[in-house]
Amino acid sequence: MPASPFDSAMYRDLLHDAGTSRLISDSAEVRAMLLVEGALARVQGAAGLIPDTAAAFIARSAMEVQIDPAALAAETGRSGVPVPALVAAFRKAMQAPDYARYAHWGATSQDIIDTALALRLRQMLTLWEERLRAILAALAALAESHAETPMAGRTWGQVASPTTFGAVVAAWGAPLLRHLERLEEMRPRLLAVSLSGAAGTSSALGDDPAALRAALAEDLGLADPGESRHTMRDTMAELSGWITLVTGTFGKMGRDLSLMTQSERREITLGRTGGSSTMPQKQNPVDPELLIALASHCAVLNTGMQAAQVHAQQRDGAPWFTEWLTLPTLCMAMGRATALARTLTASISPDIPNMARHIDDGSGLIWAEALSFALSDQLPRPEAQAVLKALCAETQGSGTPLPDLMARDHPGIDWRALCTPQAQWGTAPAEARSFARRARC
Amino acid sequence: MPASPFDSAMYRDLLHDAGTSRLISDSAEVRAMLLVEGALARVQGAAGLIPDTAAAFIARSAMEVQIDPAALAAETGRSGVPVPALVAAFRKAMQAPDYARYAHWGATSQDIIDTALALRLRQMLTLWEERLRAILAALAALAESHAETPMAGRTWGQVASPTTFGAVVAAWGAPLLRHLERLEEMRPRLLAVSLSGAAGTSSALGDDPAALRAALAEDLGLADPGESRHTMRDTMAELSGWITLVTGTFGKMGRDLSLMTQSERREITLGRTGGSSTMPQKQNPVDPELLIALASHCAVLNTGMQAAQVHAQQRDGAPWFTEWLTLPTLCMAMGRATALARTLTASISPDIPNMARHIDDGSGLIWAEALSFALSDQLPRPEAQAVLKALCAETQGSGTPLPDLMARDHPGIDWRALCTPQAQWGTAPAEARSFARRARC
Amino acid sequence: MPASPFDSAMYRDLLHDAGTSRLISDSAEVRAMLLVEGALARVQGAAGLIPDTAAAFIARSAMEVQIDPAALAAETGRSGVPVPALVAAFRKAMQAPDYARYAHWGATSQDIIDTALALRLRQMLTLWEERLRAILAALAALAESHAETPMAGRTWGQVASPTTFGAVVAAWGAPLLRHLERLEEMRPRLLAVSLSGAAGTSSALGDDPAALRAALAEDLGLADPGESRHTMRDTMAELSGWITLVTGTFGKMGRDLSLMTQSERREITLGRTGGSSTMPQKQNPVDPELLIALASHCAVLNTGMQAAQVHAQQRDGAPWFTEWLTLPTLCMAMGRATALARTLTASISPDIPNMARHIDDGSGLIWAEALSFALSDQLPRPEAQAVLKALCAETQGSGTPLPDLMARDHPGIDWRALCTPQAQWGTAPAEARSFARRARC
Amino acid sequence: MPASPFDSAMYRDLLHDAGTSRLISDSAEVRAMLLVEGALARVQGAAGLIPDTAAAFIARSAMEVQIDPAALAAETGRSGVPVPALVAAFRKAMQAPDYARYAHWGATSQDIIDTALALRLRQMLTLWEERLRAILAALAALAESHAETPMAGRTWGQVASPTTFGAVVAAWGAPLLRHLERLEEMRPRLLAVSLSGAAGTSSALGDDPAALRAALAEDLGLADPGESRHTMRDTMAELSGWITLVTGTFGKMGRDLSLMTQSERREITLGRTGGSSTMPQKQNPVDPELLIALASHCAVLNTGMQAAQVHAQQRDGAPWFTEWLTLPTLCMAMGRATALARTLTASISPDIPNMARHIDDGSGLIWAEALSFALSDQLPRPEAQAVLKALCAETQGSGTPLPDLMARDHPGIDWRALCTPQAQWGTAPAEARSFARRARC
Repeated sequence: MPASPFDSAMYRDLLHDAGTSRLISDSAEVRAMLLVEGALARVQGAAGLIPDTAAAFIARSAMEVQIDPAALAAETGRSGVPVPALVAAFRKAMQAPDYARYAHWGATSQDIIDTALALRLRQMLTLWEERLRAILAALAALAESHAETPMAGRTWGQVASPTTFGAVVAAWGAPLLRHLERLEEMRPRLLAVSLSGAAGTSSALGDDPAALRAALAEDLGLADPGESRHTMRDTMAELSGWITLVTGTFGKMGRDLSLMTQSERREITLGRTGGSSTMPQKQNPVDPELLIALASHCAVLNTGMQAAQVHAQQRDGAPWFTEWLTLPTLCMAMGRATALARTLTASISPDIPNMARHIDDGSGLIWAEALSFALSDQLPRPEAQAVLKALCAETQGSGTPLPDLMARDHPGIDWRALCTPQAQWGTAPAEARSFARRARC
Repeated sequence: MPASPFDSAMYRDLLHDAGTSRLISDSAEVRAMLLVEGALARVQGAAGLIPDTAAAFIARSAMEVQIDPAALAAETGRSGVPVPALVAAFRKAMQAPDYARYAHWGATSQDIIDTALALRLRQMLTLWEERLRAILAALAALAESHAETPMAGRTWGQVASPTTFGAVVAAWGAPLLRHLERLEEMRPRLLAVSLSGAAGTSSALGDDPAALRAALAEDLGLADPGESRHTMRDTMAELSGWITLVTGTFGKMGRDLSLMTQSERREITLGRTGGSSTMPQKQNPVDPELLIALASHCAVLNTGMQAAQVHAQQRDGAPWFTEWLTLPTLCMAMGRATALARTLTASISPDIPNMARHIDDGSGLIWAEALSFALSDQLPRPEAQAVLKALCAETQGSGTPLPDLMARDHPGIDWRALCTPQAQWGTAPAEARSFARRARC
Repeated sequence: MPASPFDSAMYRDLLHDAGTSRLISDSAEVRAMLLVEGALARVQGAAGLIPDTAAAFIARSAMEVQIDPAALAAETGRSGVPVPALVAAFRKAMQAPDYARYAHWGATSQDIIDTALALRLRQMLTLWEERLRAILAALAALAESHAETPMAGRTWGQVASPTTFGAVVAAWGAPLLRHLERLEEMRPRLLAVSLSGAAGTSSALGDDPAALRAALAEDLGLADPGESRHTMRDTMAELSGWITLVTGTFGKMGRDLSLMTQSERREITLGRTGGSSTMPQKQNPVDPELLIALASHCAVLNTGMQAAQVHAQQRDGAPWFTEWLTLPTLCMAMGRATALARTLTASISPDIPNMARHIDDGSGLIWAEALSFALSDQLPRPEAQAVLKALCAETQGSGTPLPDLMARDHPGIDWRALCTPQAQWGTAPAEARSFARRARC
Repeated sequence: MPASPFDSAMYRDLLHDAGTSRLISDSAEVRAMLLVEGALARVQGAAGLIPDTAAAFIARSAMEVQIDPAALAAETGRSGVPVPALVAAFRKAMQAPDYARYAHWGATSQDIIDTALALRLRQMLTLWEERLRAILAALAALAESHAETPMAGRTWGQVASPTTFGAVVAAWGAPLLRHLERLEEMRPRLLAVSLSGAAGTSSALGDDPAALRAALAEDLGLADPGESRHTMRDTMAELSGWITLVTGTFGKMGRDLSLMTQSERREITLGRTGGSSTMPQKQNPVDPELLIALASHCAVLNTGMQAAQVHAQQRDGAPWFTEWLTLPTLCMAMGRATALARTLTASISPDIPNMARHIDDGSGLIWAEALSFALSDQLPRPEAQAVLKALCAETQGSGTPLPDLMARDHPGIDWRALCTPQAQWGTAPAEARSFARRARC
């Protein structure tokens, strides 16, 4: 019975992402490690390091044997790494000792583990990228449709000046474009084979270990790092950092969505909201809040991955364990966040009348900046600002709308005409459309 | 197939703690929530809030019904909390609508969840405390046996002056005594019922909600907080901090043990060490390194629990989710760390000859401080220190042992007699014995 | 020119706390270390370890000499610790070599640093405790005055059911009572002398180092730990954890206050709000937001202090440096948070009409739970809940107030009478008053 | 008197980096903000938004006026941002109200703050990059010189198989090459102007705000983001992540160096080591340990920057404050780490005889893997491994060197000939040279 919330049966529809989980599971890890052992034998056979027939047999067996992860537990507990148990089980399962003895030739546990991880990360990155692109498409559609849907801009929680819903959506989506850029930059660094043996010197990997590593990279479709990276954990830390960036962007969207569902605002409706066990009226912003929590969780877990860069000597225990304890959970959180953001962004529907209603609550305070600039045609700007500041205070005290006070004190100009979203939304529509355009490339 | 390393079948013997896992699992949560619903009905029946017969039926049913956690997933995904689904399933499972309708009367989801958590944490604390006491007993025995086993004290990784292995062990164990003290202080704050309804005002809990909460507390053997604590998360954060303190102490022990197994030192043997997939000679300090990693993992996860104190209004989504994402993993890490420390401390065996060998590597530098104090009988202390500093440099350059240089430059005193562990171990034996005595109380 | 925001001249009124800063500064550290050297000489003189006259002279000099922290920089950079430079400068400043040579007799750097830190932390805890008590007094007054000031309870950002402002205030303050409890528990563990020499064995501290440590403790008014704690960092980690708990509580208050100042709510006015460089109407909740940021900052910094528990062997470099890099900033954040919370809590003024206005926005949805319980007199509770759920949906669609729909569908009962804060605020007034009472003890 | 360790006069030579500090200080911030105000006026003048003469006057004044940061404190405390106070002081200092009133036209505080930060970060990145290149040069020289200096490879703290010191150095340096790559990728994203007004809509920035922003970018030599990024904090989070990666790499080097200075190893000498206040023989690895602590500090602080991505609405308080509390310290830590790594790498000197001595401690266990492969010519590999495992155990028990046991049990082969570093160092020399080559490009 799993104890992790991400694996919980009860919290499944809240927290679980089957697509990512499938790539994290024990069986995926075993499968990937066997693939690496198979490919290693193949390229070692081709290089004449091990007999051809053995190589072919090992490579084929790696595709075919079934190894129960649970059967590796005892030896994994002792060794601290699953590879010795896996190699022993693999050799035994082949039932051909004369071939099997050539499996795992000259490699170290970390070669197998890190390369197998790269294989699985490749699939995860593909999965997550697809979702990011779907999210971008949904946000682009929203931004475009609502490029001119007026909405109150808010800073420090207070109504500031007008914007449009499309521009707000663009601010959720635009960082994703940079995250895709960063993904492309990171991929070749991250998705690399590891093959350099016990102390990173490839001492038991034949006469031309560099060529062997290159061949393995080609065989598996991974990059050849051109060096031993056992203790260079920067690419793992970079991945963790990237996940944290992406989920942070979703967290910002979640925060905004959650605030938009407040009773006093109701500027948005979502496809799925939560009920209460006792309050019949509740429509809680469950999914937006979960995006915030996932962002926070990744930011926290990321610390562990970063600290694990301090990896002693030619291999170290604790920092490696720290990666194992941390990265799978980070991936599960990323998986859930991308899946959730995808369904959520597809279900966002602005409540346009409510948005309109909140722009001007009758006080007209949202027009204060615009009025101060208009008044700057008549007065020096600092004086105009001082005038408006005083009038805003009066409005807040008396309730008389700000434009009315302007009309009273500075007659002769149609201040009201300035006080429309269209007159004051500035570049908001353009920001929305520009994002939509870029998100579609 | 679980994706969390703590639940992995393959890493089971490395990372899993069955005792803690059992209390974290979905079924444990469901079971505990039903217990709370049962107790709630019982005290509400006694208070006349719901009919006696309904109360008795609900309370009995809560013990008997089987509810599949997976069946709650869909509704839990929607609500963000499992209680609405649980209450519905419970009511249905009772097959007695006339009674069932009185279940969960006036309570809110959080009442049930937090109280059910307190019930499970009570068991976890008991389990962990037993282990802490077993660890203390093992360390007390080691400290006592080796109160006078000489060992080089090391600061900044360098040989400093002599200590004893018993004193080193005492420094591992003594913080655990304070952790038990802190546990006693924390328990009544943490293990409390929650019963205050939707907005923390007990508005649907009858005429005397305070008495009802007190009765529930007594029924369940938990403390009555005397207030609504829905948004006061300090006790959860305190628990998280306590776990971090305890695992941090184990991390320090792990670091020391790991350093003691270095090839150049070999001052310790452990019951279980790790082999390599390719290097036949390796005996890796797997368990000590794992203790370090678990300490680091808890220190990182703790951040999330602390940040989750910023819990908005009368209940909030994201910080609550953050607790759910974090606390189970913290508990699993604590469970594993305590279990591992228990087996590890029972298997520690010092290599006394190697310890002795490292005290004086022939250079006699370890005696430098002692010699400087002895020379302070003849010279002002600053001068004596300067003399010794110069002689240490000479020893480091020429290899001539420091005591020989002292004999050469300051004849007439038997410097060698000072250069024994027994003459210089100071209070180390007393520290060891004092710890052993306190650990046994 | 300081680079830390807490020391910035420009951000002084935002971030600086003079009271705490005074105790953190270089000169405070030097002064405290000299006090410790003086007290050490005094008790060593009394114990006959060093000549009486020297002891008296050193003790007096420690009070009188002026040592410029900057003059210690070069040697501190080399040693990694300021004590060697300090002792040299102290000896020189005494201008009496025959006495000066007995200064720092048998102690190690860490004895001086940790004891001097305990002296300064004692003052900081006193300062912070005074502020906490002042904050409690302010919150108690608010809670009492507004025990019956109705306010909408909100969960998940949405109006839930009524509470009172006094009860909300009580939830901000009650954790502080527990923090004071924890402070009392922590103090004797934290405020202890350190005196155990280079390797923690007191080997150069005479025949009865335990008595000497006890005498030093008495002289300085600190606790005698009864052991060497050089590498037991649990008390430092506990302090860090406590700071994080306290600032977390302020963060929750900050979050609530900030939300209450939203344009749509305006349920509160604060003594100090922030203006904008361009928007005349803004009254930004600067101080509440700063409390949130300080809480987050402490939660993050705390990770470093927790991780620093993994302190190798008889003393270690990196974890000690980590404490030095982290603890002063944590203390500055705590100092600022307590000072800010004190002025903020003294300036909170609820906007009672706005609070009233938000309880029922005309929809009457806030009464849904209460109506469902009232209807449960006529219908089984699950059916009553279903009825209300349907009516809530109708209200949300049509805008017809929920009580009107109840009157339409379930005539004969005066539903409106139930729909008042007074009828539904439950224990909120009692919670408020109970907190006020406890806060005054 | 500063309270931050990075600003401390006493810890100056340990922790302070003047180069970075200069760019972080209040006066640097004021200076940079004035530069931005000046450039803004210039481009607004050119665009006809403000009068030419005013623009020229403001731009010139921005270079000339002296504004005391401390004088901005009171208003900064109130506003939460320094810009209103700065603009007021700037306008006043110009002593030409008719021009001054056009300063800060249409911009918001965040435009000024973020652009001014970009200007200072540009200089910091340049400074840090220079240092990184100097460090690479030093490491390249070391790697090349010692490409064939044999050294024991160690995994899990235990001797594994031989490597060379040059290869070890290469593993310290190679991630820096990737960090430079990442820096190039990050720069255009990070070093961008901000100009989009109060709600990110440029509503008071004239008819063509996009052209204005582009002009400002060109004027200041920064990138034009092509959008409003007020609430997109991904570039700040990316910078923080990059700093954490770089310092993490130094932390790994620090850990290795620190372990190499252990009394039992002494494989390295450093230019600067720390003495003890009481132990004359100590040469503590102060600088390596400090690198570890700085890495840990950055990994922790980074969490705050990542969490601050969850930035609400069109601007938020707490996450922005979190950046201000965190980023300067991160930069100071990065500054110190790069400066320290530069001096440290220039001072590293391997102790070649000691390195040689540790390769084979007489047990010959370091050759176990090599012997197992050699024996695999005669026996199937699993059997050969089993043979060696048994012989290793015998060696560990009896002390008879492993090669002697091989000679006894498997005569006829000159096993000793295999047991040399040169025969077993594999690709270590090539790794060292390849790094040196790449580091010089």
